[in-house]
Amino acid sequence: MRIAIDAMGGDHAPEEIIKGVLEANTLLDKDDELILIGIKECIESQLSVMGANADAVSIVDAPEIIGMDEPPVEALRAKRKSSIAIMAKMASKKQVDAVISAGNTGACVAGCQLRMRNLEGVNRPGIAVVLPTFGGPVTMCDVGANVACKPLNLYQYAVMASLYSQNVLGIENPRVGIMSIGAEESKGNMLVKNTHELIKADKHLNFIGNLEGRDIFDGICDVVVCEGFVGNVTLKITEGLVSMMFKAIKHELMQASLELAMEFKPIMTQIYKNYDYHEYGGAPLLGVDGTALICHGASKARTIKNAIMAAKKYHTEKINDHIVEFLSTTSARTNGD
Amino acid sequence: MRIAIDAMGGDHAPEEIIKGVLEANTLLDKDDELILIGIKECIESQLSVMGANADAVSIVDAPEIIGMDEPPVEALRAKRKSSIAIMAKMASKKQVDAVISAGNTGACVAGCQLRMRNLEGVNRPGIAVVLPTFGGPVTMCDVGANVACKPLNLYQYAVMASLYSQNVLGIENPRVGIMSIGAEESKGNMLVKNTHELIKADKHLNFIGNLEGRDIFDGICDVVVCEGFVGNVTLKITEGLVSMMFKAIKHELMQASLELAMEFKPIMTQIYKNYDYHEYGGAPLLGVDGTALICHGASKARTIKNAIMAAKKYHTEKINDHIVEFLSTTSARTNGD
Repeated sequence: MRIAIDAMGGDHAPEEIIKGVLEANTLLDKDDELILIGIKECIESQLSVMGANADAVSIVDAPEIIGMDEPPVEALRAKRKSSIAIMAKMASKKQVDAVISAGNTGACVAGCQLRMRNLEGVNRPGIAVVLPTFGGPVTMCDVGANVACKPLNLYQYAVMASLYSQNVLGIENPRVGIMSIGAEESKGNMLVKNTHELIKADKHLNFIGNLEGRDIFDGICDVVVCEGFVGNVTLKITEGLVSMMFKAIKHELMQASLELAMEFKPIMTQIYKNYDYHEYGGAPLLGVDGTALICHGASKARTIKNAIMAAKKYHTEKINDHIVEFLSTTSARTNGD
Repeated sequence: MRIAIDAMGGDHAPEEIIKGVLEANTLLDKDDELILIGIKECIESQLSVMGANADAVSIVDAPEIIGMDEPPVEALRAKRKSSIAIMAKMASKKQVDAVISAGNTGACVAGCQLRMRNLEGVNRPGIAVVLPTFGGPVTMCDVGANVACKPLNLYQYAVMASLYSQNVLGIENPRVGIMSIGAEESKGNMLVKNTHELIKADKHLNFIGNLEGRDIFDGICDVVVCEGFVGNVTLKITEGLVSMMFKAIKHELMQASLELAMEFKPIMTQIYKNYDYHEYGGAPLLGVDGTALICHGASKARTIKNAIMAAKKYHTEKINDHIVEFLSTTSARTNGD
């Protein structure tokens, strides 16, 4: 398969991106092709610094760069020769089977949504992230592609995230919940109530009902669906809170004794390792006709390598075919609501 | 002032509630009156077990109990002689100046909202919680009273939570942000965008713009406003994640060495202490004509004591007068939008 990687996207581009690509290259099959998209000279000099074999990867020149903080849609319009714009265009023309970027998230999502068609039956694509929890990986969808969801969208996120959880993460019959403000059916907003009906009616989904935020970490579900606004807030809260807690623990440890702080360090490292979302590579944009993975801006080589392997699995396991097939059997598949 | 406390509400009622009330009693002024509401015999026997002075507190008999998991509105209708129903009724008749409960949150909020009038100019009350963060206490409103917010509601939450932060927590000129999915004005949903305009236009608020979830813990804001659904999810996610992280740390420590686990225990205790939301007692229901504090179901004596002291401060600092006065100068104060 042909996997395109945005060489210019992310806080550690291009070094870490290219490093990750070279690492993945050794793990892929002979007929897999990795294509780096970005400023040609920049990529070439980086590859040469790393002593890489010249024909290890292909390069597609993209002379423009979209900055991490640029307004997505405007930047995409203005910079048609940026790595993100070219990557999305190649995906839409089926010149590549998968695209991966750690660049400006908004621009990646917008680029893929604008260029790539939706899968047959899909109303709106959604971004899924895998949260590592004490009870195993939980796939949450959507985390920011769609901030004005209809029940149909959440239902389709449940379908797509279930198929992802099952076929990529290997979780049999994934338990699906709706993020709400209480487990009771009577609680929540109108979106939750209407979505509840829709998901409940589909006996092919392993629906466990509404969930509270704290349930996510308790190992009672494998998939949780929510509106993009709520999912994005959840994701950022999680990130901010974990960082604050580690800061607080470090602060207290340093106050107590340097020795204790040193002793605690391997514990911290182990926890980071156990609950490391980099393990899952990137967040798939579910529902587009192709494979698109969006990586965290802070991604290093390992994340990029893992994202490439996840893209390979996504493609090999034919997740998109499963989605189309599943939706073809339901009535919640049209482009209206 | 007269403060009514639901003696039957919470996981540790009535023991811990009554214990907290007796502790607070020693800290209050002579003319303050604490009124326990609940099953009379039960309260009396508990007071006697604790060796309390018979005239230390007043008792109002409420023979029915609303369970922690009962559907709020239905339970309120069916159990008119429950402590929550009677408490709300007494508040509405101005027979007490403040009400406090650690019971069924939904029933407390519904009881107060149904019985107590809104303050002049207030469209919808909101629940505010104080989150302890590395950068100081952050007041978040709403966390569940209103899951279908209009921009007017969020604007009023900004006003009320600012006045609370300033007059109860002692934070001068509190910095107010709107919870969104990016700091940029262009990001967020329609509610965020329209609220942004409304808050920005009021020069009396110290508005710092839109925030991401992670910013809350970074000390850049003192007040954050959001729709009740988003706020409630945030609160529960925070709770679940902290609990999971401590569980994970404990697990790793036990795997490493029991000795290290023991050494780390005081660090845990200190962190619990520094970031303990019980410190702030309960969550005020802002916007009702009276003082109503909702405590966590897990509240113990200290939380109840702190809630009583917070109610005293809320009343003494005349937060409600400040709210009415502030809103009287703005046009965003009618009951329409």
